[in-house]
Amino acid sequence: MPVMPEPIENLTLALERLPGIGPKTASRLTFFLLRAPEEVSLALAEALTALKSSTGLCEECFNITRSDQPKCEICVSDKRDEGMLCVVEEPLDVLALERTAGYFGRYHVLHGVLSPIEGIGPEDLKIRPLLERVHAGKVREIILATNPSMEGDATALYLQQQLAGSGVRITRLARGLPVGGDLEYADQNTLLRALAGRQDLS
Amino acid sequence: MPVMPEPIENLTLALERLPGIGPKTASRLTFFLLRAPEEVSLALAEALTALKSSTGLCEECFNITRSDQPKCEICVSDKRDEGMLCVVEEPLDVLALERTAGYFGRYHVLHGVLSPIEGIGPEDLKIRPLLERVHAGKVREIILATNPSMEGDATALYLQQQLAGSGVRITRLARGLPVGGDLEYADQNTLLRALAGRQDLS
Repeated sequence: MPVMPEPIENLTLALERLPGIGPKTASRLTFFLLRAPEEVSLALAEALTALKSSTGLCEECFNITRSDQPKCEICVSDKRDEGMLCVVEEPLDVLALERTAGYFGRYHVLHGVLSPIEGIGPEDLKIRPLLERVHAGKVREIILATNPSMEGDATALYLQQQLAGSGVRITRLARGLPVGGDLEYADQNTLLRALAGRQDLS
Repeated sequence: MPVMPEPIENLTLALERLPGIGPKTASRLTFFLLRAPEEVSLALAEALTALKSSTGLCEECFNITRSDQPKCEICVSDKRDEGMLCVVEEPLDVLALERTAGYFGRYHVLHGVLSPIEGIGPEDLKIRPLLERVHAGKVREIILATNPSMEGDATALYLQQQLAGSGVRITRLARGLPVGGDLEYADQNTLLRALAGRQDLS
């Protein structure tokens, strides 16, 4: 016998499918929504329904864009330097970099990383369009901003090889101690990288 | 300039209104839904829309029930002892007790606790219907299962006074060390209660 009526069960199960939300959190959220004004759950429902139908990928950089706009806001903006291209794994990474308010170039979203184990090769990522953008000639510098992980590094290495001889400056985000971090708690690899990449205080 | 298109922003903001979900979790969930099959977000949207319109309160115990059923499944079940009444604060507490699979009586949901600070008095809770149920005469025992907090205890005390002289057995859930817990980490009050409530090993 189900203890809770179907509508409650349905919502709890639907919430449980989200990452990081277990059965307990799911029922807590369900009962929160039950007590909250109906407007809260309806707004969420509406946003969910609109999500897929009203978004698409920018035809230039493959970031998320509104489905009625072929190019994203960053690609159409004339305030962004089209000579700089920051290559990231996911649209979420664009968001993280934009939050820094310290990058004024454009982006290129790969939508994944090379991963032989999962069978993801260069053809599964937006690598060919990246090479085309570079060969079009306007790009001066490419910042490889894939994650500092095994796959991210391998993807960056592959892109570096593909772009060799294009005459474009290729850089990678710096590794080292995170700001506000503690030397004592830094892992071995981070510390090794911080040592190797030490900078002159002129 | 908003970095992400409106549909993404909308969903992120709607998710941020849920308890325990901050801006970062909200955008992670949004991008998860963006990559997941559309069916996932649509199922969630549907469950959210149905939530309020298809649920109501049981007219007997005030637990959540389907809006087309005046009484909840527990109140209509003839397998549940109608002589036992477990008084809880919220419908979520019913769920927790049902999960134990060790209680076979019925429930009464107060929908809150007495809280003079927040201006919640006896009239704001489902206390009058509880007294009516008891006076109807079928109830033998009432388990006061409000939370072991200041307000929960005060509410239990108030109910105990109201029910005095009704001839019904009134009990309160035991306090003590949680199963699997560690004596070393138990707080002072819990340990005091565990001492006071120590049981004979015959």
